[in-house]
Amino acid sequence: MAAQTFVYTHRVTYSECTVGNHVYYARYLDLLEEARNEFFRAIGAPLLRLQQNGTAFFVSECHLHYRALARYDDLLRIEMWVEELGRVRLTLGSRIINPEDKLVLEATTVLACTSCEEKPKRLPPELVKALELFVGPVAPRD
Amino acid sequence: MAAQTFVYTHRVTYSECTVGNHVYYARYLDLLEEARNEFFRAIGAPLLRLQQNGTAFFVSECHLHYRALARYDDLLRIEMWVEELGRVRLTLGSRIINPEDKLVLEATTVLACTSCEEKPKRLPPELVKALELFVGPVAPRD
Amino acid sequence: MAAQTFVYTHRVTYSECTVGNHVYYARYLDLLEEARNEFFRAIGAPLLRLQQNGTAFFVSECHLHYRALARYDDLLRIEMWVEELGRVRLTLGSRIINPEDKLVLEATTVLACTSCEEKPKRLPPELVKALELFVGPVAPRD
Amino acid sequence: MAAQTFVYTHRVTYSECTVGNHVYYARYLDLLEEARNEFFRAIGAPLLRLQQNGTAFFVSECHLHYRALARYDDLLRIEMWVEELGRVRLTLGSRIINPEDKLVLEATTVLACTSCEEKPKRLPPELVKALELFVGPVAPRD
Repeated sequence: MAAQTFVYTHRVTYSECTVGNHVYYARYLDLLEEARNEFFRAIGAPLLRLQQNGTAFFVSECHLHYRALARYDDLLRIEMWVEELGRVRLTLGSRIINPEDKLVLEATTVLACTSCEEKPKRLPPELVKALELFVGPVAPRD
Repeated sequence: MAAQTFVYTHRVTYSECTVGNHVYYARYLDLLEEARNEFFRAIGAPLLRLQQNGTAFFVSECHLHYRALARYDDLLRIEMWVEELGRVRLTLGSRIINPEDKLVLEATTVLACTSCEEKPKRLPPELVKALELFVGPVAPRD
Repeated sequence: MAAQTFVYTHRVTYSECTVGNHVYYARYLDLLEEARNEFFRAIGAPLLRLQQNGTAFFVSECHLHYRALARYDDLLRIEMWVEELGRVRLTLGSRIINPEDKLVLEATTVLACTSCEEKPKRLPPELVKALELFVGPVAPRD
Repeated sequence: MAAQTFVYTHRVTYSECTVGNHVYYARYLDLLEEARNEFFRAIGAPLLRLQQNGTAFFVSECHLHYRALARYDDLLRIEMWVEELGRVRLTLGSRIINPEDKLVLEATTVLACTSCEEKPKRLPPELVKALELFVGPVAPRD
Protein backbone atom coordinates (compact mmCIF):
# COMPACT_ATOMS: atom_id res chain seq x y z
CA MET A 1 0.00 0.00 0.00
CA ALA A 2 1.43 3.36 -1.01
CA ALA A 3 2.15 5.82 1.79
CA GLN A 4 0.19 8.99 2.24
CA THR A 5 2.05 12.04 0.93
CA PHE A 6 1.91 15.55 2.32
CA VAL A 7 1.71 18.24 -0.36
CA TYR A 8 2.67 21.88 0.06
CA THR A 9 2.98 24.67 -2.51
CA HIS A 10 5.46 27.53 -2.59
CA ARG A 11 5.79 30.47 -4.97
CA VAL A 12 9.41 31.34 -5.88
CA THR A 13 10.52 34.92 -5.03
CA TYR A 14 13.45 37.01 -6.34
CA SER A 15 15.00 36.54 -2.91
CA GLU A 16 15.39 32.82 -3.61
CA CYS A 17 16.89 33.19 -7.10
CA THR A 18 20.45 33.82 -8.15
CA VAL A 19 22.39 34.86 -11.26
CA GLY A 20 21.00 33.06 -14.31
CA ASN A 21 17.42 33.20 -12.97
CA HIS A 22 17.08 30.00 -11.02
CA VAL A 23 16.60 29.12 -7.38
CA TYR A 24 19.92 29.16 -5.50
CA TYR A 25 20.90 25.62 -4.44
CA ALA A 26 20.82 26.35 -0.69
CA ARG A 27 17.35 27.93 -0.75
CA TYR A 28 15.72 24.53 -1.37
CA LEU A 29 16.63 23.66 2.21
CA ASP A 30 14.71 26.71 3.40
CA LEU A 31 11.73 25.54 1.31
CA LEU A 32 12.00 22.02 2.74
CA GLU A 33 11.95 23.48 6.27
CA GLU A 34 8.88 25.57 5.38
CA ALA A 35 7.12 22.45 4.06
CA ARG A 36 8.26 20.43 7.11
CA ASN A 37 6.74 23.02 9.48
CA GLU A 38 3.41 22.68 7.68
CA PHE A 39 3.67 18.88 7.55
CA PHE A 40 4.05 18.69 11.34
CA ARG A 41 1.19 21.17 11.76
CA ALA A 42 -1.00 19.15 9.38
CA ILE A 43 -0.52 15.94 11.39
CA GLY A 44 -1.47 17.78 14.58
CA ALA A 45 2.02 18.20 16.03
CA PRO A 46 3.31 21.72 15.28
CA LEU A 47 7.07 21.97 15.93
CA LEU A 48 6.54 24.97 18.23
CA ARG A 49 4.27 22.93 20.53
CA LEU A 50 6.67 19.98 20.46
CA GLN A 51 9.46 22.36 21.44
CA GLN A 52 7.38 23.86 24.27
CA ASN A 53 6.94 20.26 25.48
CA GLY A 54 10.66 19.58 25.38
CA THR A 55 11.14 17.97 21.96
CA ALA A 56 13.27 19.50 19.23
CA PHE A 57 14.64 18.22 15.92
CA PHE A 58 18.06 18.73 14.44
CA VAL A 59 18.91 17.87 10.87
CA SER A 60 21.67 15.27 10.95
CA GLU A 61 21.83 14.45 7.23
CA CYS A 62 20.58 15.94 4.02
CA HIS A 63 20.93 14.39 0.57
CA LEU A 64 19.95 16.47 -2.43
CA HIS A 65 19.66 15.54 -6.09
CA TYR A 66 19.04 18.58 -8.25
CA ARG A 67 17.17 17.50 -11.40
CA ALA A 68 16.01 20.72 -13.08
CA LEU A 69 16.05 24.45 -12.36
CA ALA A 70 13.15 26.25 -10.68
CA ARG A 71 12.58 29.84 -11.86
CA TYR A 72 11.21 33.09 -10.46
CA ASP A 73 7.43 32.99 -9.87
CA ASP A 74 7.20 29.20 -10.35
CA LEU A 75 4.50 27.72 -8.16
CA LEU A 76 6.35 24.69 -6.80
CA ARG A 77 4.71 21.56 -5.51
CA ILE A 78 6.59 20.07 -2.56
CA GLU A 79 5.75 16.45 -1.69
CA MET A 80 6.86 14.97 1.64
CA TRP A 81 6.60 11.53 3.22
CA VAL A 82 8.31 9.36 5.86
CA GLU A 83 11.07 7.11 4.54
CA GLU A 84 12.05 5.67 7.89
CA LEU A 85 10.70 6.01 11.37
CA GLY A 86 13.34 5.06 13.93
CA ARG A 87 13.35 5.41 17.70
CA VAL A 88 15.40 8.61 17.70
CA ARG A 89 15.72 9.36 14.00
CA LEU A 90 13.11 10.31 11.45
CA THR A 91 13.94 10.18 7.74
CA LEU A 92 11.79 12.30 5.45
CA GLY A 93 11.67 11.98 1.69
CA SER A 94 10.78 14.98 -0.48
CA ARG A 95 10.27 15.89 -4.09
CA ILE A 96 9.90 19.36 -5.57
CA ILE A 97 8.00 19.62 -8.85
CA ASN A 98 7.66 22.68 -11.08
CA PRO A 99 4.51 24.00 -12.84
CA GLU A 100 5.39 22.01 -16.01
CA ASP A 101 5.30 18.89 -13.82
CA LYS A 102 9.06 18.45 -14.09
CA LEU A 103 11.04 17.06 -11.17
CA VAL A 104 13.25 19.83 -9.74
CA LEU A 105 14.70 18.22 -6.62
CA GLU A 106 14.75 14.92 -4.74
CA ALA A 107 15.77 15.14 -1.11
CA THR A 108 16.24 12.90 1.89
CA THR A 109 16.47 14.59 5.27
CA VAL A 110 17.41 12.76 8.46
CA LEU A 111 16.17 14.44 11.63
CA ALA A 112 17.43 13.55 15.09
CA CYS A 113 15.02 13.98 17.96
CA THR A 114 16.54 15.81 20.93
CA SER A 115 15.62 17.48 24.18
CA CYS A 116 15.78 21.27 24.23
CA GLU A 117 19.27 20.90 25.77
CA GLU A 118 20.35 19.18 22.53
CA LYS A 119 20.53 15.62 24.01
CA PRO A 120 19.16 12.74 21.86
CA LYS A 121 15.78 11.40 22.95
CA ARG A 122 13.09 9.03 21.63
CA LEU A 123 10.37 10.34 19.37
CA PRO A 124 7.23 10.99 21.47
CA PRO A 125 4.73 8.07 21.00
CA GLU A 126 1.83 10.29 19.85
CA LEU A 127 4.10 11.77 17.16
CA VAL A 128 5.14 8.28 16.01
CA LYS A 129 1.46 7.40 15.68
CA ALA A 130 0.73 10.49 13.60
CA LEU A 131 3.75 9.88 11.36
CA GLU A 132 2.96 6.21 10.71
CA LEU A 133 0.34 7.03 8.09
CA PHE A 134 3.05 8.60 5.95
CA VAL A 135 5.50 5.65 6.10
CA GLY A 136 5.93 3.25 3.21
CA PRO A 137 6.75 3.08 -0.49
CA VAL A 138 5.68 6.18 -2.35
CA ALA A 139 3.97 5.79 -5.71
CA PRO A 140 6.73 6.04 -8.33
CA ARG A 141 6.93 9.09 -10.56
CA ASP A 142 7.03 8.29 -14.28
CA MET B 1 38.10 67.26 12.34
CA ALA B 2 36.83 64.37 10.23
CA ALA B 3 35.79 61.23 12.11
CA GLN B 4 37.73 58.03 11.87
CA THR B 5 36.10 55.53 9.52
CA PHE B 6 36.14 51.76 9.86
CA VAL B 7 36.73 49.95 6.57
CA TYR B 8 35.79 46.36 5.80
CA THR B 9 35.85 44.43 2.53
CA HIS B 10 33.45 41.77 1.33
CA ARG B 11 33.49 39.62 -1.82
CA VAL B 12 30.03 39.11 -3.40
CA THR B 13 28.89 35.47 -3.76
CA TYR B 14 26.18 33.88 -5.95
CA SER B 15 24.20 33.39 -2.76
CA GLU B 16 23.83 37.17 -2.42
CA CYS B 17 22.80 37.83 -6.03
CA THR B 18 19.41 37.59 -7.66
CA VAL B 19 17.90 37.51 -11.16
CA GLY B 20 19.65 40.07 -13.38
CA ASN B 21 23.03 39.50 -11.69
CA HIS B 22 23.04 42.00 -8.88
CA VAL B 23 23.05 41.79 -5.11
CA TYR B 24 19.50 41.30 -3.76
CA TYR B 25 18.35 44.41 -1.86
CA ALA B 26 17.97 42.62 1.50
CA ARG B 27 21.45 41.06 1.45
CA TYR B 28 23.07 44.47 2.01
CA LEU B 29 21.69 44.31 5.56
CA ASP B 30 23.50 41.00 6.06
CA LEU B 31 26.70 42.67 4.79
CA LEU B 32 26.19 45.63 7.12
CA GLU B 33 25.82 43.23 10.06
CA GLU B 34 29.02 41.43 9.02
CA ALA B 35 30.86 44.76 8.86
CA ARG B 36 29.32 45.84 12.20
CA ASN B 37 30.57 42.65 13.89
CA GLU B 38 34.09 43.43 12.71
CA PHE B 39 33.78 47.12 13.63
CA PHE B 40 32.92 46.22 17.24
CA ARG B 41 35.76 43.68 17.30
CA ALA B 42 38.19 46.25 15.90
CA ILE B 43 37.40 48.76 18.65
CA GLY B 44 37.97 46.08 21.29
CA ALA B 45 34.34 45.31 22.11
CA PRO B 46 33.22 42.17 20.22
CA LEU B 47 29.42 41.82 20.29
CA LEU B 48 29.71 38.28 21.70
CA ARG B 49 31.63 39.55 24.74
CA LEU B 50 29.20 42.44 25.22
CA GLN B 51 26.35 39.92 25.11
CA GLN B 52 28.09 37.65 27.63
CA ASN B 53 28.32 40.73 29.87
CA GLY B 54 24.62 41.48 29.50
CA THR B 55 24.54 44.00 26.65
CA ALA B 56 22.82 43.37 23.34
CA PHE B 57 21.85 45.56 20.38
CA PHE B 58 18.64 45.55 18.41
CA VAL B 59 18.24 47.42 15.15
CA SER B 60 15.43 49.95 15.62
CA GLU B 61 15.74 51.79 12.30
CA CYS B 62 17.42 51.25 8.98
CA HIS B 63 17.47 53.73 6.11
CA LEU B 64 18.87 52.58 2.79
CA HIS B 65 19.60 54.51 -0.39
CA TYR B 66 20.55 52.20 -3.22
CA ARG B 67 22.78 54.10 -5.68
CA ALA B 68 24.21 51.47 -8.04
CA LEU B 69 24.14 47.69 -8.44
CA ALA B 70 26.83 45.43 -6.99
CA ARG B 71 27.61 42.32 -9.05
CA TYR B 72 28.85 38.78 -8.46
CA ASP B 73 32.53 38.63 -7.41
CA ASP B 74 32.75 42.40 -6.75
CA LEU B 75 35.11 43.15 -3.91
CA LEU B 76 33.05 45.69 -1.99
CA ARG B 77 34.46 48.31 0.35
CA ILE B 78 32.18 48.92 3.34
CA GLU B 79 32.84 52.12 5.31
CA MET B 80 31.31 52.60 8.73
CA TRP B 81 31.29 55.45 11.26
CA VAL B 82 29.23 56.81 14.17
CA GLU B 83 26.61 59.38 13.21
CA GLU B 84 25.18 59.82 16.66
CA LEU B 85 26.10 58.47 20.07
CA GLY B 86 23.12 58.71 22.43
CA ARG B 87 22.64 57.30 25.91
CA VAL B 88 20.69 54.27 24.73
CA ARG B 89 20.85 54.61 20.95
CA LEU B 90 23.76 54.39 18.60
CA THR B 91 23.42 55.59 15.00
CA LEU B 92 25.87 54.17 12.50
CA GLY B 93 26.47 55.55 9.03
CA SER B 94 27.69 53.27 6.22
CA ARG B 95 28.66 53.41 2.60
CA ILE B 96 29.28 50.52 0.25
CA ILE B 97 31.58 51.17 -2.69
CA ASN B 98 32.26 48.87 -5.65
CA PRO B 99 35.62 48.06 -7.30
CA GLU B 100 35.11 50.88 -9.86
CA ASP B 101 34.87 53.24 -6.87
CA LYS B 102 31.17 53.81 -7.49
CA LEU B 103 28.81 54.35 -4.56
CA VAL B 104 26.50 51.32 -4.27
CA LEU B 105 24.63 52.00 -1.02
CA GLU B 106 24.29 54.62 1.69
CA ALA B 107 22.81 53.40 4.94
CA THR B 108 21.93 54.70 8.37
CA THR B 109 21.31 52.12 11.08
CA VAL B 110 19.94 52.97 14.51
CA LEU B 111 20.80 50.44 17.20
CA ALA B 112 19.08 50.32 20.58
CA CYS B 113 21.13 49.05 23.49
CA THR B 114 19.27 46.47 25.61
CA SER B 115 19.82 43.94 28.33
CA CYS B 116 19.72 40.30 27.28
CA GLU B 117 16.06 40.27 28.40
CA GLU B 118 15.36 42.86 25.68
CA LYS B 119 14.93 45.84 28.07
CA PRO B 120 16.51 49.19 27.01
CA LYS B 121 19.69 50.11 28.87
CA ARG B 122 22.48 52.70 28.63
CA LEU B 123 25.50 52.06 26.46
CA PRO B 124 28.36 50.78 28.66
CA PRO B 125 30.84 53.64 29.37
CA GLU B 126 33.89 51.79 28.01
CA LEU B 127 32.00 51.20 24.74
CA VAL B 128 31.06 54.89 24.52
CA LYS B 129 34.72 55.76 24.91
CA ALA B 130 35.77 53.39 22.15
CA LEU B 131 33.05 54.66 19.81
CA GLU B 132 33.85 58.35 20.34
CA LEU B 133 36.81 58.26 17.96
CA PHE B 134 34.41 57.41 15.15
CA VAL B 135 31.91 60.24 15.80
CA GLY B 136 31.79 63.37 13.67
CA PRO B 137 31.48 64.60 10.13
CA VAL B 138 32.83 62.15 7.62
CA ALA B 139 34.97 63.42 4.77
CA PRO B 140 32.59 63.98 1.84
CA ARG B 141 32.71 61.73 -1.19
CA ASP B 142 33.14 63.52 -4.50
CA MET C 1 -11.32 58.70 1.63
CA ALA C 2 -9.01 56.05 3.02
CA ALA C 3 -6.93 54.12 0.49
CA GLN C 4 -7.49 50.48 -0.21
CA THR C 5 -4.92 48.28 1.50
CA PHE C 6 -3.51 45.00 0.24
CA VAL C 7 -3.20 42.33 2.92
CA TYR C 8 -0.91 39.31 2.82
CA THR C 9 -0.05 36.74 5.49
CA HIS C 10 3.23 34.99 6.10
CA ARG C 11 4.20 32.28 8.60
CA VAL C 12 7.66 32.75 10.16
CA THR C 13 10.11 29.87 9.66
CA TYR C 14 13.34 28.95 11.51
CA SER C 15 15.19 30.07 8.41
CA GLU C 16 14.07 33.65 9.05
CA CYS C 17 14.95 33.73 12.76
CA THR C 18 18.24 34.41 14.45
CA VAL C 19 19.84 34.04 17.89
CA GLY C 20 17.36 35.09 20.58
CA ASN C 21 14.39 33.72 18.63
CA HIS C 22 13.27 36.64 16.54
CA VAL C 23 13.15 37.40 12.85
CA TYR C 24 16.53 38.65 11.59
CA TYR C 25 16.31 42.34 10.60
CA ALA C 26 17.18 41.74 6.93
CA ARG C 27 14.57 39.00 6.42
CA TYR C 28 11.73 41.55 6.63
CA LEU C 29 12.88 42.83 3.24
CA ASP C 30 12.46 39.32 1.83
CA LEU C 31 8.93 39.26 3.31
CA LEU C 32 8.15 42.67 1.83
CA GLU C 33 9.27 41.42 -1.59
CA GLU C 34 7.07 38.33 -1.20
CA ALA C 35 4.08 40.55 -0.30
CA ARG C 36 4.93 42.94 -3.18
CA ASN C 37 4.91 40.05 -5.68
CA GLU C 38 1.42 39.10 -4.52
CA PHE C 39 0.25 42.72 -4.46
CA PHE C 40 1.20 43.15 -8.13
CA ARG C 41 -0.44 39.83 -8.99
CA ALA C 42 -3.60 40.83 -7.10
CA ILE C 43 -3.98 44.06 -9.09
CA GLY C 44 -3.61 42.12 -12.34
CA ALA C 45 0.00 43.03 -13.13
CA PRO C 46 2.32 40.19 -12.04
CA LEU C 47 5.96 41.36 -12.03
CA LEU C 48 6.97 38.46 -14.27
CA ARG C 49 4.57 39.61 -17.00
CA LEU C 50 5.67 43.23 -16.62
CA GLN C 51 9.27 42.07 -17.01
CA GLN C 52 8.42 40.00 -20.09
CA ASN C 53 6.92 43.22 -21.50
CA GLY C 54 10.07 45.22 -20.74
CA THR C 55 9.30 46.77 -17.36
CA ALA C 56 11.30 46.04 -14.24
CA PHE C 57 11.51 47.62 -10.78
CA PHE C 58 14.56 48.34 -8.71
CA VAL C 59 14.38 49.33 -5.07
CA SER C 60 15.98 52.77 -4.76
CA GLU C 61 15.16 53.46 -1.10
CA CYS C 62 13.99 51.49 1.88
CA HIS C 63 13.13 52.96 5.29
CA LEU C 64 12.46 50.56 8.13
CA HIS C 65 11.20 51.20 11.66
CA TYR C 66 11.37 48.07 13.77
CA ARG C 67 8.71 48.29 16.51
CA ALA C 68 8.52 44.80 18.06
CA LEU C 69 10.05 41.38 17.49
CA ALA C 70 8.37 38.71 15.39
CA ARG C 71 8.96 35.13 16.56
CA TYR C 72 9.13 31.64 15.04
CA ASP C 73 5.74 30.37 13.81
CA ASP C 74 4.05 33.80 14.09
CA LEU C 75 1.44 34.27 11.42
CA LEU C 76 2.28 37.80 10.31
CA ARG C 77 -0.15 40.17 8.63
CA ILE C 78 1.56 42.34 6.02
CA GLU C 79 -0.37 45.43 4.88
CA MET C 80 0.68 47.32 1.76
CA TRP C 81 -0.53 50.49 0.05
CA VAL C 82 0.70 53.21 -2.33
CA GLU C 83 2.18 56.26 -0.61
CA GLU C 84 3.14 58.09 -3.79
CA LEU C 85 2.64 57.38 -7.44
CA GLY C 86 5.18 59.32 -9.50
CA ARG C 87 5.98 59.13 -13.21
CA VAL C 88 9.01 56.90 -12.74
CA ARG C 89 8.92 56.18 -9.01
CA LEU C 90 6.43 54.27 -6.94
CA THR C 91 6.48 54.57 -3.15
CA LEU C 92 4.89 51.74 -1.21
CA GLY C 93 3.99 51.86 2.47
CA SER C 94 3.89 48.66 4.54
CA ARG C 95 3.12 47.51 8.05
CA ILE C 96 3.78 44.10 9.54
CA ILE C 97 1.56 43.06 12.43
CA ASN C 98 1.97 40.02 14.68
CA PRO C 99 -0.74 37.59 15.92
CA GLU C 100 -1.22 39.66 19.11
CA ASP C 101 -2.05 42.60 16.83
CA LYS C 102 1.17 44.37 17.75
CA LEU C 103 2.99 46.47 15.17
CA VAL C 104 6.28 44.75 14.25
CA LEU C 105 7.58 46.88 11.39
CA GLU C 106 6.74 50.03 9.44
CA ALA C 107 8.41 50.32 6.06
CA THR C 108 8.53 52.68 3.11
CA THR C 109 9.96 51.30 -0.12
CA VAL C 110 10.72 53.46 -3.15
CA LEU C 111 10.76 51.55 -6.42
CA ALA C 112 12.22 52.95 -9.64
CA CYS C 113 10.68 51.77 -12.88
CA THR C 114 13.27 50.72 -15.46
CA SER C 115 13.61 48.95 -18.76
CA CYS C 116 15.14 45.47 -18.65
CA GLU C 117 18.48 47.14 -19.56
CA GLU C 118 18.25 49.03 -16.24
CA LYS C 119 17.39 52.46 -17.78
CA PRO C 120 14.70 54.55 -16.01
CA LYS C 121 11.32 54.62 -17.74
CA ARG C 122 7.77 55.79 -17.00
CA LEU C 123 5.34 53.51 -15.21
CA PRO C 124 3.08 51.82 -17.80
CA PRO C 125 -0.36 53.61 -17.89
CA GLU C 126 -2.39 50.45 -17.18
CA LEU C 127 -0.25 49.81 -14.09
CA VAL C 128 -0.78 53.40 -12.89
CA LYS C 129 -4.52 52.89 -13.26
CA ALA C 130 -4.43 49.66 -11.22
CA LEU C 131 -2.29 51.25 -8.50
CA GLU C 132 -4.48 54.38 -8.14
CA LEU C 133 -7.04 52.56 -6.00
CA PHE C 134 -4.36 52.01 -3.36
CA VAL C 135 -3.18 55.65 -3.17
CA GLY C 136 -4.16 57.95 -0.32
CA PRO C 137 -4.14 58.26 3.44
CA VAL C 138 -4.33 54.95 5.18
CA ALA C 139 -6.63 54.57 8.16
CA PRO C 140 -4.46 55.25 11.24
CA ARG C 141 -3.55 52.45 13.59
CA ASP C 142 -4.31 53.20 17.23
CA MET D 1 50.24 10.44 -1.41
CA ALA D 2 47.66 12.60 0.33
CA ALA D 3 45.90 15.19 -1.80
CA GLN D 4 46.45 18.88 -1.35
CA THR D 5 43.63 20.52 0.59
CA PHE D 6 42.34 24.06 0.15
CA VAL D 7 41.63 25.85 3.42
CA TYR D 8 39.32 28.82 3.89
CA THR D 9 38.08 30.53 7.06
CA HIS D 10 34.71 32.09 7.72
CA ARG D 11 33.39 33.99 10.75
CA VAL D 12 29.77 33.15 11.66
CA THR D 13 27.34 36.10 11.69
CA TYR D 14 23.89 36.52 13.31
CA SER D 15 22.46 36.36 9.82
CA GLU D 16 23.57 32.73 9.54
CA CYS D 17 22.23 31.61 12.91
CA THR D 18 18.75 30.54 13.92
CA VAL D 19 16.72 29.96 17.09
CA GLY D 20 18.86 28.12 19.66
CA ASN D 21 22.04 29.94 18.58
CA HIS D 22 23.47 27.73 15.90
CA VAL D 23 24.07 28.04 12.19
CA TYR D 24 20.90 27.27 10.21
CA TYR D 25 21.30 24.01 8.25
CA ALA D 26 20.89 25.64 4.82
CA ARG D 27 23.50 28.35 5.44
CA TYR D 28 26.34 25.81 5.27
CA LEU D 29 25.65 25.57 1.54
CA ASP D 30 26.19 29.32 1.26
CA LEU D 31 29.49 28.89 3.13
CA LEU D 32 30.52 26.03 0.86
CA GLU D 33 29.82 28.24 -2.18
CA GLU D 34 31.89 31.05 -0.65
CA ALA D 35 34.78 28.62 -0.06
CA ARG D 36 34.35 27.16 -3.57
CA ASN D 37 34.64 30.64 -5.13
CA GLU D 38 37.92 31.16 -3.31
CA PHE D 39 39.15 27.66 -4.14
CA PHE D 40 38.69 28.29 -7.87
CA ARG D 41 40.36 31.71 -7.51
CA ALA D 42 43.28 30.14 -5.62
CA ILE D 43 43.96 27.60 -8.39
CA GLY D 44 43.97 30.40 -10.97
CA ALA D 45 40.51 29.81 -12.44
CA PRO D 46 38.00 32.27 -10.88
CA LEU D 47 34.41 31.21 -11.65
CA LEU D 48 33.64 34.66 -13.09
CA ARG D 49 36.39 34.29 -15.70
CA LEU D 50 35.32 30.73 -16.51
CA GLN D 51 31.79 32.02 -17.00
CA GLN D 52 32.99 34.86 -19.25
CA ASN D 53 34.71 32.14 -21.30
CA GLY D 54 31.54 30.08 -21.56
CA THR D 55 31.89 27.61 -18.70
CA ALA D 56 29.48 27.45 -15.78
CA PHE D 57 28.87 24.96 -12.96
CA PHE D 58 25.61 23.74 -11.59
CA VAL D 59 25.34 21.75 -8.40
CA SER D 60 23.77 18.41 -9.28
CA GLU D 61 24.13 16.67 -5.90
CA CYS D 62 24.88 17.68 -2.36
CA HIS D 63 25.32 15.28 0.57
CA LEU D 64 25.59 16.76 4.04
CA HIS D 65 26.41 15.12 7.37
CA TYR D 66 25.92 17.51 10.25
CA ARG D 67 28.21 16.47 13.13
CA ALA D 68 28.14 19.37 15.61
CA LEU D 69 26.63 22.84 15.86
CA ALA D 70 28.51 25.97 14.84
CA ARG D 71 27.73 29.09 16.90
CA TYR D 72 27.68 32.86 16.42
CA ASP D 73 31.17 34.36 16.03
CA ASP D 74 32.86 30.97 15.56
CA LEU D 75 35.80 31.23 13.20
CA LEU D 76 35.19 28.17 11.04
CA ARG D 77 37.85 26.35 9.07
CA ILE D 78 36.53 25.04 5.75
CA GLU D 79 38.64 22.38 4.05
CA MET D 80 38.03 21.47 0.41
CA TRP D 81 39.50 18.91 -1.97
CA VAL D 82 38.63 16.99 -5.16
CA GLU D 83 37.01 13.61 -4.59
CA GLU D 84 36.50 12.79 -8.24
CA LEU D 85 37.44 14.49 -11.46
CA GLY D 86 35.22 13.28 -14.30
CA ARG D 87 34.89 14.53 -17.85
CA VAL D 88 31.78 16.58 -17.16
CA ARG D 89 31.39 16.20 -13.41
CA LEU D 90 33.55 17.40 -10.57
CA THR D 91 33.03 16.03 -7.06
CA LEU D 92 34.31 18.16 -4.20
CA GLY D 93 34.73 16.99 -0.64
CA SER D 94 34.52 19.45 2.26
CA ARG D 95 34.82 19.54 6.00
CA ILE D 96 33.91 22.38 8.32
CA ILE D 97 35.73 22.53 11.65
CA ASN D 98 34.98 24.80 14.60
CA PRO D 99 37.47 26.74 16.81
CA GLU D 100 37.58 23.84 19.32
CA ASP D 101 38.76 21.65 16.41
CA LYS D 102 35.46 19.73 16.38
CA LEU D 103 34.02 18.50 13.11
CA VAL D 104 30.85 20.46 12.30
CA LEU D 105 29.97 19.27 8.80
CA GLU D 106 31.09 16.79 6.16
CA ALA D 107 29.88 17.51 2.65
CA THR D 108 30.17 16.09 -0.84
CA THR D 109 29.13 18.36 -3.69
CA VAL D 110 28.80 17.17 -7.29
CA LEU D 111 29.14 19.95 -9.85
CA ALA D 112 28.14 19.54 -13.50
CA CYS D 113 30.05 21.56 -16.04
CA THR D 114 27.79 23.35 -18.52
CA SER D 115 27.83 26.01 -21.20
CA CYS D 116 26.22 29.33 -20.30
CA GLU D 117 23.08 28.05 -22.07
CA GLU D 118 22.92 25.29 -19.41
CA LYS D 119 24.03 22.43 -21.73
CA PRO D 120 26.51 19.87 -20.30
CA LYS D 121 30.08 20.24 -21.54
CA ARG D 122 33.54 18.85 -20.73
CA LEU D 123 35.66 20.47 -18.07
CA PRO D 124 38.22 22.79 -19.78
CA PRO D 125 41.66 21.02 -19.93
CA GLU D 126 43.53 23.83 -18.11
CA LEU D 127 41.00 23.59 -15.26
CA VAL D 128 41.45 19.80 -15.08
CA LYS D 129 45.19 20.34 -14.80
CA ALA D 130 44.78 22.84 -11.96
CA LEU D 131 42.35 20.58 -10.10
CA GLU D 132 44.53 17.46 -10.37
CA LEU D 133 46.77 18.55 -7.50
CA PHE D 134 43.77 18.35 -5.18
CA VAL D 135 42.65 14.82 -6.18
CA GLY D 136 43.35 11.81 -4.01
CA PRO D 137 42.87 10.43 -0.53
CA VAL D 138 42.74 13.12 2.10
CA ALA D 139 44.65 12.61 5.34
CA PRO D 140 42.17 11.11 7.80
CA ARG D 141 40.91 13.14 10.73
CA ASP D 142 41.31 11.45 14.10
